[in-house]
Amino acid sequence: MQIGFIGLGHMGQGMARRLLDAGHILTVYNRSRDKAQDLAGHGARIAETPADAAGGDVLITMLTGDAALEAVLHGRHGALPALHRGAVHISMSTISLSLSERLAALHGEAGQGYLAAPVFGRPEAAAAGKLFIVAGGDGALIERCRPLFEAMGQRLFVAGPQPQSANLIKLSGNFLIASVLESLGEAFALVRKGGIDPQTYLEILTGSLFPAPLYQNYGAMIAQQRHPPGGFSAALGLKDVRLALAAADAQQVPMPVASVIHDRLLTLVAQGHGEGDWSALARLSAEQAGLK
Amino acid sequence: MQIGFIGLGHMGQGMARRLLDAGHILTVYNRSRDKAQDLAGHGARIAETPADAAGGDVLITMLTGDAALEAVLHGRHGALPALHRGAVHISMSTISLSLSERLAALHGEAGQGYLAAPVFGRPEAAAAGKLFIVAGGDGALIERCRPLFEAMGQRLFVAGPQPQSANLIKLSGNFLIASVLESLGEAFALVRKGGIDPQTYLEILTGSLFPAPLYQNYGAMIAQQRHPPGGFSAALGLKDVRLALAAADAQQVPMPVASVIHDRLLTLVAQGHGEGDWSALARLSAEQAGLK
Amino acid sequence: MQIGFIGLGHMGQGMARRLLDAGHILTVYNRSRDKAQDLAGHGARIAETPADAAGGDVLITMLTGDAALEAVLHGRHGALPALHRGAVHISMSTISLSLSERLAALHGEAGQGYLAAPVFGRPEAAAAGKLFIVAGGDGALIERCRPLFEAMGQRLFVAGPQPQSANLIKLSGNFLIASVLESLGEAFALVRKGGIDPQTYLEILTGSLFPAPLYQNYGAMIAQQRHPPGGFSAALGLKDVRLALAAADAQQVPMPVASVIHDRLLTLVAQGHGEGDWSALARLSAEQAGLK
Amino acid sequence: MQIGFIGLGHMGQGMARRLLDAGHILTVYNRSRDKAQDLAGHGARIAETPADAAGGDVLITMLTGDAALEAVLHGRHGALPALHRGAVHISMSTISLSLSERLAALHGEAGQGYLAAPVFGRPEAAAAGKLFIVAGGDGALIERCRPLFEAMGQRLFVAGPQPQSANLIKLSGNFLIASVLESLGEAFALVRKGGIDPQTYLEILTGSLFPAPLYQNYGAMIAQQRHPPGGFSAALGLKDVRLALAAADAQQVPMPVASVIHDRLLTLVAQGHGEGDWSALARLSAEQAGLK
Repeated sequence: MQIGFIGLGHMGQGMARRLLDAGHILTVYNRSRDKAQDLAGHGARIAETPADAAGGDVLITMLTGDAALEAVLHGRHGALPALHRGAVHISMSTISLSLSERLAALHGEAGQGYLAAPVFGRPEAAAAGKLFIVAGGDGALIERCRPLFEAMGQRLFVAGPQPQSANLIKLSGNFLIASVLESLGEAFALVRKGGIDPQTYLEILTGSLFPAPLYQNYGAMIAQQRHPPGGFSAALGLKDVRLALAAADAQQVPMPVASVIHDRLLTLVAQGHGEGDWSALARLSAEQAGLK
Repeated sequence: MQIGFIGLGHMGQGMARRLLDAGHILTVYNRSRDKAQDLAGHGARIAETPADAAGGDVLITMLTGDAALEAVLHGRHGALPALHRGAVHISMSTISLSLSERLAALHGEAGQGYLAAPVFGRPEAAAAGKLFIVAGGDGALIERCRPLFEAMGQRLFVAGPQPQSANLIKLSGNFLIASVLESLGEAFALVRKGGIDPQTYLEILTGSLFPAPLYQNYGAMIAQQRHPPGGFSAALGLKDVRLALAAADAQQVPMPVASVIHDRLLTLVAQGHGEGDWSALARLSAEQAGLK
Repeated sequence: MQIGFIGLGHMGQGMARRLLDAGHILTVYNRSRDKAQDLAGHGARIAETPADAAGGDVLITMLTGDAALEAVLHGRHGALPALHRGAVHISMSTISLSLSERLAALHGEAGQGYLAAPVFGRPEAAAAGKLFIVAGGDGALIERCRPLFEAMGQRLFVAGPQPQSANLIKLSGNFLIASVLESLGEAFALVRKGGIDPQTYLEILTGSLFPAPLYQNYGAMIAQQRHPPGGFSAALGLKDVRLALAAADAQQVPMPVASVIHDRLLTLVAQGHGEGDWSALARLSAEQAGLK
Repeated sequence: MQIGFIGLGHMGQGMARRLLDAGHILTVYNRSRDKAQDLAGHGARIAETPADAAGGDVLITMLTGDAALEAVLHGRHGALPALHRGAVHISMSTISLSLSERLAALHGEAGQGYLAAPVFGRPEAAAAGKLFIVAGGDGALIERCRPLFEAMGQRLFVAGPQPQSANLIKLSGNFLIASVLESLGEAFALVRKGGIDPQTYLEILTGSLFPAPLYQNYGAMIAQQRHPPGGFSAALGLKDVRLALAAADAQQVPMPVASVIHDRLLTLVAQGHGEGDWSALARLSAEQAGLK
């Protein structure tokens, strides 16, 4: 299969590399070309424009959100007009339900396939092919693309025949992660002020109730008070919680904890910490408790 | 060791039985005597009063909260005056930090040992000796009591030399569980209104981000919309979140998600659902979203 | 001045009537024509289309929100293309900042004036010419339109040279009203459960701390537990709080109380009470407290 | 009438002075004696102990809360044992419902009268006899004490025969004030980031929707970003919201906005701003929005 891959950020780079390593022929595009260079060394062709990447059987997009995806699809030298009838667009970005619905309609009218296939996992997991992928759309199409998903992920979940179901699951999942961060942050602030060693506390939590990598990894960041840039930023977290709340609002689902988290991520961003890891929610709890 | 065991509710019954099965000599007391009867068949002596259960080397208490514990300790025929110098009181109930501190002082003055050793786990885990036990207090004393903890739990964690540290960890842990319930409830309401099958959603969550029994067990209750009495009730959950917030207030730690959960558990209780399982937080989310 | 007036709902009807009574020449348009009929009896000409109403010196629009306003401006036989160079559009609806900004740009390009002039007041105030009007835009233009504002309102406030400032003030004002409703609702639930007569409580509040019509009028509705349709609905309230939160999100301003209110209005709407008065927020508080 | 007056803080000083000016015979007590000195110059006798102030017909207490009141009543040389049969205790402090209930019982058993009569108003209002007083308790007793209330307040409201009703109204009223501060704070942060002049905004609010002194006075503090010590502190505000939430919890009334405010006042206190005016809630909103 001839695959075009657009978006070589922290996540996309690892995913594209996995496809190359699995023997697929890849044409890659990224707004800043230097990120593509590295993949060229592993056999990828570098496209000069989004349109240039969209000439094959499959187009994979992995961008930071609605605006970026719309820019590469509809902008100057955009990918959409270049896509063949019969081709399939696998949209792996975390985007709004409404954009996903619009894309499903557009591709349908153009005789093209469309799958929403967002992923769970951090950049390390992308590089190791250990992502969890949630795919929504036509079942037969998902099966046809399974080899690609298997190159990129450790497991594929089928959300259902509506592409946007996969987007909703992704958004709700990111909300659940955010709620873990926020509640861990509150809990750590409480026990730290109570004189308990954060590392001991983390061991108790992950050794008993919460034996899950998510709690272990983020818990360690919180216990050590390290929230450096480079993972998943507060700004991206805010974007995703905002999209989850937009879907909730459209479907009339009150989500009070999601609202609290929105306001706290917004605080981080407004105070200039948008680029730091979103686990800095815990630092906000600590600061509000008067901890240093 | 001669052990007195007071409090034979859903949890205490299983714990006492495990001690008997491990060969310990037990005198048990419960306000309503019928719950003690069953244990008598397995070798326990039945005490007529709390005092009557407090004559041995160790007194274990497992009650529903501060008021119940204070009643058996300080009430008519109370356990406290009957406890020997040199005996140790292992307080396993989920109680307030302030009561735990007061008990530590009282027992200290009386030349007695005091350990706070609250547990994580539901009644099934208590019956199977699979509890997680968090012990706070003098390290040597904890070691001396280790055989008892090992009979009741699958793992013992040491919180530190202050007994109330264990209580704080327990309360913060119950807050973390409640936050999982609340956020799962919001997420399930969202995806259900989005047309996604709850069972599929649960499999995706527990197969990817959240491979922990807590998410599996409570997630199943939420997916199936079953929150029957008999496990851990909304009323008890409210009590624990209230105690966590009291500790947070005393130590000046703002906990916005804990406050949201408090108000929602209070809603359940005020609307007459205090006896149902606290995972009914999810039903509240569903109702507020207009789902049936 | 030749005035076109589009939007004859609860509010628009009274406002148009006031203009007629002040001697202005009015062409009115409403989607459902029957509402225009009444004004024809007072001298208004009835337009068949939005375009038909937009041929004069001034176009006033008073619709339920962004979508309705965009429909009459940009839709079939829309008003915008019919508006003369040199004419002025006074947009009195409660709309988003982003739409207001776009309209300012559009009218500017077309050599037309644009004022945002949202109002505070319920239908009775509109009928009586007792509205408070907040106007944003070019100062000279505001002065030229002052006679119109004086016909409709008891007082005109000038927000500043940016039209959207007036929209932001309006949205923030509606948030403040909603926060009064929500907090009154919580307070009344508390005192009612404490056995205090709601009417006595209302008299104490409005006789001491809160001698303002807003507290008196809404307080009476809450004390008497009457929230009938016909005033300002929960659905419209939700729309406005949503717009306030959208502006807050865009400008990075966390508003936790606004978020709480959003979720509670959303609950009312999701549970089928969108048409009732938005003071039904207080009924929600009462229900959640287990009051009937 | 021989009156004992205990508690000469910001509020008590003005109230005692009003009673002296109205011709009443006063014995005053304050923990730090210097505050009593000033009143001695206006004819008050200075008591050396609380007991020494409690020998007359009426005992008025005006302290900062439960702990302070219990100390003067039950502590060394406490007032309670010194109070005559037939005397009446007018408790004007903002205290918990549970303490008020206990005092009602205690005084009843001792053949003494008990009125709860908390006040609304800042120190300036106390000095000017402009307080609003809410009295709860036996109606005849309230009438007998009316001359005292009229010396101290501009208006007396009767809450009902249960003393603690007055306390509940006071606590709910302070919650309502806090909710005004919090929502004004959020609104001002929003409009300031939107480029609107705070002073203009304040004039619009108080000239239209909110023509009440509360909005004018606190609004001015918020517009000018001045929250100096000396009025009503964040720490006292926190205490009162905590008591309101305790009453709400006991009566099973969820109060989500009160919970938000609790957490935000707790943040102010935890960050070392407990002594500043509680309108600093608005500064917290501004900071969280990234404003300086």
